[in-house]
Amino acid sequence: QGISGKMFRTLGKNNINIRAIAQGASEKNISAVIATKDVKKALNSLHERFFKDINKRLNLFITGVGNVGEKLIEQIHQQQEYLIHTLRINIRVVGLSNSRKMIFDEEGISLSSWKDTLNNGKEASLKEFFETVKTLNLRNSIFVDITANEEVAKVYGNYLKNNIAVVACNKIACSADYKNYSLLKRLSLQYNTPFLFETNVGAGLPIIDTLNNLIASGDEIVTIQAVLSGSLNFIFNNFTTDTDFYEVVKQAQQEGYTEPDPGIDLSGVDVARKILILARESGMQLDLEDIENQSFLTPKNLEAATVEDFYESLRADAAHFNQLLATANKNNCQLKYVAELSNGKAKVGLREIPKGHPFYNLKGKDNIVMFYTKRYPEQPMIIKGAGAGADVTASGLFADIIKVANK
Amino acid sequence: QGISGKMFRTLGKNNINIRAIAQGASEKNISAVIATKDVKKALNSLHERFFKDINKRLNLFITGVGNVGEKLIEQIHQQQEYLIHTLRINIRVVGLSNSRKMIFDEEGISLSSWKDTLNNGKEASLKEFFETVKTLNLRNSIFVDITANEEVAKVYGNYLKNNIAVVACNKIACSADYKNYSLLKRLSLQYNTPFLFETNVGAGLPIIDTLNNLIASGDEIVTIQAVLSGSLNFIFNNFTTDTDFYEVVKQAQQEGYTEPDPGIDLSGVDVARKILILARESGMQLDLEDIENQSFLTPKNLEAATVEDFYESLRADAAHFNQLLATANKNNCQLKYVAELSNGKAKVGLREIPKGHPFYNLKGKDNIVMFYTKRYPEQPMIIKGAGAGADVTASGLFADIIKVANK
Repeated sequence: QGISGKMFRTLGKNNINIRAIAQGASEKNISAVIATKDVKKALNSLHERFFKDINKRLNLFITGVGNVGEKLIEQIHQQQEYLIHTLRINIRVVGLSNSRKMIFDEEGISLSSWKDTLNNGKEASLKEFFETVKTLNLRNSIFVDITANEEVAKVYGNYLKNNIAVVACNKIACSADYKNYSLLKRLSLQYNTPFLFETNVGAGLPIIDTLNNLIASGDEIVTIQAVLSGSLNFIFNNFTTDTDFYEVVKQAQQEGYTEPDPGIDLSGVDVARKILILARESGMQLDLEDIENQSFLTPKNLEAATVEDFYESLRADAAHFNQLLATANKNNCQLKYVAELSNGKAKVGLREIPKGHPFYNLKGKDNIVMFYTKRYPEQPMIIKGAGAGADVTASGLFADIIKVANK
Repeated sequence: QGISGKMFRTLGKNNINIRAIAQGASEKNISAVIATKDVKKALNSLHERFFKDINKRLNLFITGVGNVGEKLIEQIHQQQEYLIHTLRINIRVVGLSNSRKMIFDEEGISLSSWKDTLNNGKEASLKEFFETVKTLNLRNSIFVDITANEEVAKVYGNYLKNNIAVVACNKIACSADYKNYSLLKRLSLQYNTPFLFETNVGAGLPIIDTLNNLIASGDEIVTIQAVLSGSLNFIFNNFTTDTDFYEVVKQAQQEGYTEPDPGIDLSGVDVARKILILARESGMQLDLEDIENQSFLTPKNLEAATVEDFYESLRADAAHFNQLLATANKNNCQLKYVAELSNGKAKVGLREIPKGHPFYNLKGKDNIVMFYTKRYPEQPMIIKGAGAGADVTASGLFADIIKVANK
């Protein structure tokens, strides 16, 4: 049963063109005519398909090898054997790129010496990277975007159209204009090619997947309330009457909790992007402009032209921030930067959280999401845990990659 | 590219035997010789594969249609159109069984009148049910076990060996002897056929999937702490100095929070089964006997032969339970029934939970799991929410079914 199906599908998936086929009634013998250049590839593929164990090979093309990318490669390196034995998944990193260099190796880049190899690679080019992935035409190819780069986000469509899955922690594609987001979702469906971005919200926490499962099974989102910014958490957890807001922000930046320009975090745009993605995944057609952003910054802060000016304005407006804190303290509340989605509307802003509320004791870089749904009406489903950090973000990417293997 | 692959794979998957094949060099024409009885099926399959839209059809065979089963059918009925449009998944319920009757319809059982149809079905038989599923030989077949029946759990292996996926909320297979559990995991791998049981722990909460993702990406479980029993929560939340333990248990039973025999819940064996499953999914070879069960019941309770005797013994031992509560109150603690996994050892038992602990304010039928791992070392990843109830359990089963579609 299905011997010819297996054989021709294997050849087809490997892009081997069949000129002629013959099979007699005995079923002991199937012949196919192919080009000489394809012979080796065909033999290897068929051998693997019929005679070797049935590991599913994943071919990864990773762009962006900063903190998170490095961790991901480390995790893949460490887990390769385990995955083969427990899940029959054989992961190979076939392409690697940063903003300067790129390398490819169809047999798999050595994960113990990739840094040197990459340093000696050829000049990076987004276009050439894509062309190479396409030309290699390997089974189960996955493009992994670990940048925060807008240009990289723009090419996802090309990959999806060529049956190359996309796994991204870059959240630009899903939080830029709705049309593009929905185009990518449509392409993913049309080409039956996964487009996964769990790490866009809450790093390794299973937030988007959980939301998708609720929606697919017919649950309805009533309200989402969430704290989604590790950097803003750090800042407001450390801002006490003994400290100066300006100093706390500086410290957060120095310890790597904020972007190099902390204004990006403090403006709330990053949190707005995250709640936007959750809103879209809940089925709502929203754009970033539709998210109400109630800034806690002063006009002076918002107008600062440079990072230095921004810090200067925070210092100058110390009284404003002290007042925010004093009022919260007077009300026995903690200041938390909260994102909310309710009745199809989303907003982000600083809130006073009273004692007893699940957000009140939120520490460090923890994120928390509360889903109030038709099926979880009074007591929400809650997911909580570290929502930032290279290790947990890489492990979220890893989970998405394994999901692709299972598609 | 791949036309012959598509064609022969489609025929193969549909169990259509090919006697002879011919394809000329033009690739405009592929011929195959098949048996007359297979012609219609072959034409339909090929037509669907090549010309119609690419919905993936799932064929469900559901056994057990109590509260949860009814809800699941309701959810499938309600979501059928949505799934076709958004996920290209076309779900049909082809087989249905309860303990008395069973029915089949290859074209899909009408989900608005299934109860009547089932009442008029033929006599239920586990063996015949399996034989029918096997003989129908439909693509993407899924056996869904919504019973708590040991006999049903015993047949999973037969399904898996025939490439029929198994989705179960019945937790017997995963919490009975380790050998059988690991055999089923192995069969699932060997036949590349999903065996999913997310609802075994925490109903619709994404606990097992999250744990699987952590482990696969190389994280390591340090400690799991969890409250996993809606019934024991209900009982200890309602047991106050104004109430009698006996009365509270009676009320819990009457409101459907416990098994008909509440001794099963109070003995902790159900919670022990759940932590056992989490331990096994973390990679540990444990059996139920290895779970330390520190019972809060008295010897008299444990020895009760009937449900009436059990209630009588609870009444007689009122002082014992009052003492447990008084001590907790004196220590400013709440009583919670807690499962713990640490250093490869698991235990379950009643604990005094101090103020400020995430378990302290746990209400109603909420479950909570805290994962302390290598990557979530100080502040755990927490998943919390309703851990019982027909609606959320059905939605967890639904999520597993969709996962099969994506395999």
